[in-house]
Amino acid sequence: MNVSGAIHDLRALLADPDRVTVNETILEHHSHDLTYHAPHLPEAVVFPTDTQEVSRIVRFANENGIPVVPFGVGSSLEGHVIPVRGGITLDLSRMNQILEIRPQDFLVRVQPGVTRSQLNQALRRHGLFFPVDPGADATLGGMAATNASGTNAVRYGAMRGQVLGLEVVLPDGRIIHTGGLSVKSSAGYYLTGLFVGSEGTLGVITEVILRVYGIPEHTAAARAVFPDVESAGRAAVALIGSGMTVGRVELVDAKTIVAVNRFKGTDYLESPTLFLEFGGGRKAVEEDIRLAEELVNSEGCQTFVYEHDPEAVAKLWEARHHAALALMAMAPGKKMMTTDVCVPISHLPGALHAARELMETRGMDGFILGHVGDGNYHAGFAVDADNPEDIARAEEVNAAIVRYALERGGTCTGEHGVGMGKRKYLPEEHGEAVELMRGIKALIDPKGIMNPGKVIPD
Amino acid sequence: MNVSGAIHDLRALLADPDRVTVNETILEHHSHDLTYHAPHLPEAVVFPTDTQEVSRIVRFANENGIPVVPFGVGSSLEGHVIPVRGGITLDLSRMNQILEIRPQDFLVRVQPGVTRSQLNQALRRHGLFFPVDPGADATLGGMAATNASGTNAVRYGAMRGQVLGLEVVLPDGRIIHTGGLSVKSSAGYYLTGLFVGSEGTLGVITEVILRVYGIPEHTAAARAVFPDVESAGRAAVALIGSGMTVGRVELVDAKTIVAVNRFKGTDYLESPTLFLEFGGGRKAVEEDIRLAEELVNSEGCQTFVYEHDPEAVAKLWEARHHAALALMAMAPGKKMMTTDVCVPISHLPGALHAARELMETRGMDGFILGHVGDGNYHAGFAVDADNPEDIARAEEVNAAIVRYALERGGTCTGEHGVGMGKRKYLPEEHGEAVELMRGIKALIDPKGIMNPGKVIPD
Repeated sequence: MNVSGAIHDLRALLADPDRVTVNETILEHHSHDLTYHAPHLPEAVVFPTDTQEVSRIVRFANENGIPVVPFGVGSSLEGHVIPVRGGITLDLSRMNQILEIRPQDFLVRVQPGVTRSQLNQALRRHGLFFPVDPGADATLGGMAATNASGTNAVRYGAMRGQVLGLEVVLPDGRIIHTGGLSVKSSAGYYLTGLFVGSEGTLGVITEVILRVYGIPEHTAAARAVFPDVESAGRAAVALIGSGMTVGRVELVDAKTIVAVNRFKGTDYLESPTLFLEFGGGRKAVEEDIRLAEELVNSEGCQTFVYEHDPEAVAKLWEARHHAALALMAMAPGKKMMTTDVCVPISHLPGALHAARELMETRGMDGFILGHVGDGNYHAGFAVDADNPEDIARAEEVNAAIVRYALERGGTCTGEHGVGMGKRKYLPEEHGEAVELMRGIKALIDPKGIMNPGKVIPD
Repeated sequence: MNVSGAIHDLRALLADPDRVTVNETILEHHSHDLTYHAPHLPEAVVFPTDTQEVSRIVRFANENGIPVVPFGVGSSLEGHVIPVRGGITLDLSRMNQILEIRPQDFLVRVQPGVTRSQLNQALRRHGLFFPVDPGADATLGGMAATNASGTNAVRYGAMRGQVLGLEVVLPDGRIIHTGGLSVKSSAGYYLTGLFVGSEGTLGVITEVILRVYGIPEHTAAARAVFPDVESAGRAAVALIGSGMTVGRVELVDAKTIVAVNRFKGTDYLESPTLFLEFGGGRKAVEEDIRLAEELVNSEGCQTFVYEHDPEAVAKLWEARHHAALALMAMAPGKKMMTTDVCVPISHLPGALHAARELMETRGMDGFILGHVGDGNYHAGFAVDADNPEDIARAEEVNAAIVRYALERGGTCTGEHGVGMGKRKYLPEEHGEAVELMRGIKALIDPKGIMNPGKVIPD
């Protein structure tokens, strides 16, 4: 059945028929993500407001073989939300209620369309926060779907570690609940973890139970400048190995600092720089900073600056936060491509070095940012999405960066997910295990309606 | 095919035929776990020494419909390793090589038969340790299979958070590799997490890649005594909510302290007691202790004792560590039954109170220990395994404790796993999601040879 003939039926499934739309502007808005991936229009966009509506729409789509693509705010980076085979885009932004905050249990229940800043705003008055910070103000449903992480992951872990339970609408419309309200469980197969990171290919997440954390009494940040990426990498390993609790450990390479200085008019030393954050009791943090300074100095740190004042802390992090912006600002009209490999931590300095070289030999500008504590880093390039040669060149660098990681036991994607962009690397990374993934997909979504063309290679 | 007729064939699959045995003593050793669950003999015990042998044995068993039960040291607590349908027990204790220690990457690769104390001994000279501590000196393969955790989980997380990758022999003999050497990944479905906690029902774990951690520069411990369980619970919530890094937070109830005093000849105050541990830089730890004392005092703590000296720290933890021993020592000839529910943290004081009351109204002695930071606790009873009435009474208390947890969104097992003992509770805990678990079991193990009678209810 084609969707245009089914609009009437779809409208009958919702309390308000206006929440099914074929408006051109809205279709266009749901045709792309933030990157260079080629856009494709959905045939209709549906805005459900509760789980029952999601269930009815998905069951209808399944019965009629219509593709369904769940959509949060569209901030993903590998084409996850692009409806490459048309069909229905299920925009979950109106399912944005914080259902429950349980401060004494350090958990919340939210609908999938709640964004992380919306959640953090609501948590603040309880002295709590949600730590996963992928940069974009993504929805929590989308962050669960891609197993997002970000700069805080070294201390708090990625999204999968925060999700205690899910409500999921399966492709046949059944509604299941995985996990629960307890912090840990060994009760049966880990379905919660299977759906986290499944990128909308196994069902639609309609509710998320998340861990939240006490805001540390005090937070301080430091910037440590090194003569080269290698010594910065060694310093990061020393910090992690010390057993101290580091909040964030981020590396920005010299060329990226140059771009930031040009963009922001700042005068940061144009050398590889580690950005650090520590949180806890005030005196414990002071002691952490002192110990960190000792450790990084013994690895050749040239300048160590730290700040306790919240505004100064925010200012200190600006160079890190604005790196991608700085690059894109210098390339108006272009689209972003960002790599996302993760390597064993000791390989990170070598990987960063190799990535910069790969870019330079092709005359490409770009940022390089590393979540050093995790071995995950991003090389980002501005590409002309209308120029196949430009894209081919960028993809070649991306492929070389992925190969470098896979040869060292790493992964093609640390936190962005597979989407369209990384499908081709799964067989090399996982071998025979991809067949098991394919079996699970076929078990749960036998008609292949859920986000087709994503994750599992053809 | 029955196993006794297949011994010759099995022997031909191993490099050394003596590693297939039907020796009565060895069969008996593999017929039980540490608890009251009724033993059952395997028909043969096989001791493979490498993955290829495991693959050949499992493939043979699958072709011939013979049950296979993986076995580590037999320290599980819900009958996981009892071969209730006979068949082959695959004893993995000779696959006990530490394959690789990568100190700079904070990871190790081990065979499944390596025990946690064996690993920690090898890690010590690198200044590293493996944090998951379930009490028993279990194998790492077994700990992965049950998603074990223990007292350190509040800081480091449970087993699933430590396992970066696995080698698994599937029921048809195929060997797959999940995950890899990077700390995080979003590359496809989370198969690693699916096999962790699958209790040998989906395949045999033949290799484990684990995260390891720097030994904190300094460790200190404290004991805080409270007038009642409720105030101890509130103090634990305050500690967790403070944002400080707590290593362990364990609660021992008054009656359990009484048993320990009797067993050890100690004179601990016979009131609910929190045992705490802190690790990090010396001054940071001192500051943590100071802050912790302030927090627990404001919740009514009557006595706060702390220790920095390693021997004194170990001594301070004795009451916690010997609680189960103390109980069993007072009940010679009896077997242990231990509950393992996990509840949302705020419900823990109420749950502990209810558990003690359930025991007292039935005149039952037993220990109560709580991993307060996780909401997981154990009530343990000595039961006469030959007395059906005694078992029925204990199971009734166990069921009431589980029901209390499930009614509050908790789980029937926080860390011991389902095994035989908790199967009956899965439908109540997971509802429709159990059908998906059943589907995954049928997908991966269509003939049902892997550890039959465990995890998934009939």
